[in-house]
Amino acid sequence: MNYEDIRQTAYDTNMQLPKLGLVLFTFGNVSAADRQAGVFAIKPSGVPYEELSPEKMVIVDFDGKIVEGSLRPSSDTNTHAVLYKYWEKIGGIVHTHSTYATAWAQSHRDIPIFGTTHADHLTVDVPCAPPMNDAMIEGDYEYQTGFQIMDCFKEKGLSYEEVEMVLVGNHAPFTWGKTAEKAVYNSAVLEAVAQMALLTEQINPQAPRLKDSLIKKHFERKHGPNSYYGQ
Amino acid sequence: MNYEDIRQTAYDTNMQLPKLGLVLFTFGNVSAADRQAGVFAIKPSGVPYEELSPEKMVIVDFDGKIVEGSLRPSSDTNTHAVLYKYWEKIGGIVHTHSTYATAWAQSHRDIPIFGTTHADHLTVDVPCAPPMNDAMIEGDYEYQTGFQIMDCFKEKGLSYEEVEMVLVGNHAPFTWGKTAEKAVYNSAVLEAVAQMALLTEQINPQAPRLKDSLIKKHFERKHGPNSYYGQ
Amino acid sequence: MNYEDIRQTAYDTNMQLPKLGLVLFTFGNVSAADRQAGVFAIKPSGVPYEELSPEKMVIVDFDGKIVEGSLRPSSDTNTHAVLYKYWEKIGGIVHTHSTYATAWAQSHRDIPIFGTTHADHLTVDVPCAPPMNDAMIEGDYEYQTGFQIMDCFKEKGLSYEEVEMVLVGNHAPFTWGKTAEKAVYNSAVLEAVAQMALLTEQINPQAPRLKDSLIKKHFERKHGPNSYYGQ
Amino acid sequence: MNYEDIRQTAYDTNMQLPKLGLVLFTFGNVSAADRQAGVFAIKPSGVPYEELSPEKMVIVDFDGKIVEGSLRPSSDTNTHAVLYKYWEKIGGIVHTHSTYATAWAQSHRDIPIFGTTHADHLTVDVPCAPPMNDAMIEGDYEYQTGFQIMDCFKEKGLSYEEVEMVLVGNHAPFTWGKTAEKAVYNSAVLEAVAQMALLTEQINPQAPRLKDSLIKKHFERKHGPNSYYGQ
Repeated sequence: MNYEDIRQTAYDTNMQLPKLGLVLFTFGNVSAADRQAGVFAIKPSGVPYEELSPEKMVIVDFDGKIVEGSLRPSSDTNTHAVLYKYWEKIGGIVHTHSTYATAWAQSHRDIPIFGTTHADHLTVDVPCAPPMNDAMIEGDYEYQTGFQIMDCFKEKGLSYEEVEMVLVGNHAPFTWGKTAEKAVYNSAVLEAVAQMALLTEQINPQAPRLKDSLIKKHFERKHGPNSYYGQ
Repeated sequence: MNYEDIRQTAYDTNMQLPKLGLVLFTFGNVSAADRQAGVFAIKPSGVPYEELSPEKMVIVDFDGKIVEGSLRPSSDTNTHAVLYKYWEKIGGIVHTHSTYATAWAQSHRDIPIFGTTHADHLTVDVPCAPPMNDAMIEGDYEYQTGFQIMDCFKEKGLSYEEVEMVLVGNHAPFTWGKTAEKAVYNSAVLEAVAQMALLTEQINPQAPRLKDSLIKKHFERKHGPNSYYGQ
Repeated sequence: MNYEDIRQTAYDTNMQLPKLGLVLFTFGNVSAADRQAGVFAIKPSGVPYEELSPEKMVIVDFDGKIVEGSLRPSSDTNTHAVLYKYWEKIGGIVHTHSTYATAWAQSHRDIPIFGTTHADHLTVDVPCAPPMNDAMIEGDYEYQTGFQIMDCFKEKGLSYEEVEMVLVGNHAPFTWGKTAEKAVYNSAVLEAVAQMALLTEQINPQAPRLKDSLIKKHFERKHGPNSYYGQ
Repeated sequence: MNYEDIRQTAYDTNMQLPKLGLVLFTFGNVSAADRQAGVFAIKPSGVPYEELSPEKMVIVDFDGKIVEGSLRPSSDTNTHAVLYKYWEKIGGIVHTHSTYATAWAQSHRDIPIFGTTHADHLTVDVPCAPPMNDAMIEGDYEYQTGFQIMDCFKEKGLSYEEVEMVLVGNHAPFTWGKTAEKAVYNSAVLEAVAQMALLTEQINPQAPRLKDSLIKKHFERKHGPNSYYGQ
């Protein structure tokens, strides 16, 4: 079996999604990239999690062409491909329809940074990319979804290395990271942050965003040269 | 044992309801039809899920007459019967009182199509049939519930083959499909969509409905001649 | 061991509370009565569910006097006693602080009858008894809680045989039934109805109460001389 | 192995957090103090719960200096240290980012005392300490967090022996108690009270706070010289 490592990683991380309560049925997918080989392994489309195996993962290159595998890859494969192609330090990507993050995406709103749980992971509101125009939707939809995400980051001046998550308006979240494991972790964090932000606005519709000093402090505790979180 | 196939299917699919978190106690039922034989197998009334077995399923014809079985069938049997009789391509029906779908039914509101999770499964708002008039309620209530559902579809110009779910006002959801397995799947999808729609309105009371191009795109990814979802 | 039957029943039904998600730690108790003997078995106070056994149940008479048992009974024992004494057809009582029912109790509101899930079990709003006056609170508090519940039923013209649940304002729910098993069932139904009613008002603040014909129909499907639910 | 008792206690109580649904990944920590030895055992930073063992707990003194252990202690260690140093009867401290309590913290609001579930544990609103000023945040942040908590108690005239929980504005809850087990118990109680308070305000935005006589009665049932709850 070729590409054994990323097959195994893609399998393991896909299996994390139902355990973390992030997917119903097959509403999600994880991919894991091998940057040397210029390919990624991704979940086959519509196959229930309990029937997955490393062998069933599909190997695809960064232009979305199938390299190896007898099953059809996730219908979102081209979104993964385009993000791998242009964002060169990503090693894993996750797409889910997790409940709270998807509700924010359907609301067309960025998730405000209300607390340190959020600031531990990113220093800005979670961006929500607007829905595409009709020409993009009717064209190569999944490919354009990737460009829509990148355009949103350009417009807002965000770095994909610092902000590893996005909501696609009317659709659902995508997250990524240096590894597929980190991308899955980010999906679970996003869902928790999305739920807390909704509850915060319900308790206090005038709840203030986190102030800059706290955003800086918490982010730097976990990230950057002087971080002191973890081992 | 006669009708062994649909007994087994009805048993298996009924047992899915508690696993999917769609029922409390006995508040739900699934039936599976054998179109050749003109009958369906349905859960016996009020029997806890842990005491069910394929043998206990009751065989009923499309006029609601018991064909085989010593137990009384679900009190909703006549609603199933009338839908099987008039909607000839249905192979399975599910009724639950799942939390969020039931709350929408109690609210007398269609569930707005806010996102692609919804559009992956149907291209319109989930219809909510109004409560029946008093004469219908005092008459053959469960039978009339079936007609109320069909009238709602006629009035809104919907096809039961494209829209496989309905809310009955003040009551709760019914879903169906070519198979009982698909009908159960639809019940879980409906509950997820119902929860997300409520959260979406809480986050943004002015949240826009999904635009037509995205509705079309997502539905056609999963359904129709050029679908590319699944294997 | 004396009173073995009600000890076993009280043990079994108390153990149902955590399984049904109705209690955190020891925030709940079930009792089971032996009407012949004029006593009931109740959970000992503050003992974690995982340390319970039938032997640890405390036997108490309808005046609240301990008949048998080395442990102190639930601090709510006198509320149970007074309800058993005056409502002579009750065989079991449950008290919990389940999340949604308690939130309604804290809100000082009856739970409106919005749908058939509610009407399957009772034909009226779930009553909320007002908090007691200060003299009653400072007196024999738990005993007075029982009277407060009965006064609420008198004032609203309700029958404890038809309405087997109440919210005590600012406090939490009590439910009862012919048996302790039925009382536990009622606690779970109340929690589901309480959650759905809150969601219904969130989806539609003007949601109408269920109309009389539907209330009557659904209640009579499950109860009364012509019921056709169950076996 | 030294300090075996508090290592074991810190391990056992840390492992309770995921079981009680109070943490996602490593977003929480428990410490257990040995007052004789002037030290406490605390979770190592960023280590997943499933990889913990009593040996991995880090021993730290009340000035925040590591006494024993090869791993880096929780990044919140200095907050624990300062609370142990100045609040001399505390034996255990818990920090989580539990969903509902954190949402209240992000809302900068005290949790109103709406019912007896709350009054069973404390007689006042759960206090929310304001965010620190920028100088404190940029200084020794975790150390200052401890002082911020103590200042909040001084200003509100609260006793840490009677009120064993606090929300830190924009951040998340801390709880404590005579033992680490009690501190964990308090974290779960706080989360339940926080959820119920939010629901209460949703059901009735004018819901009244619990009246004094009920606050007194319920607190004294469980605490104080004439308490009659528990064994």
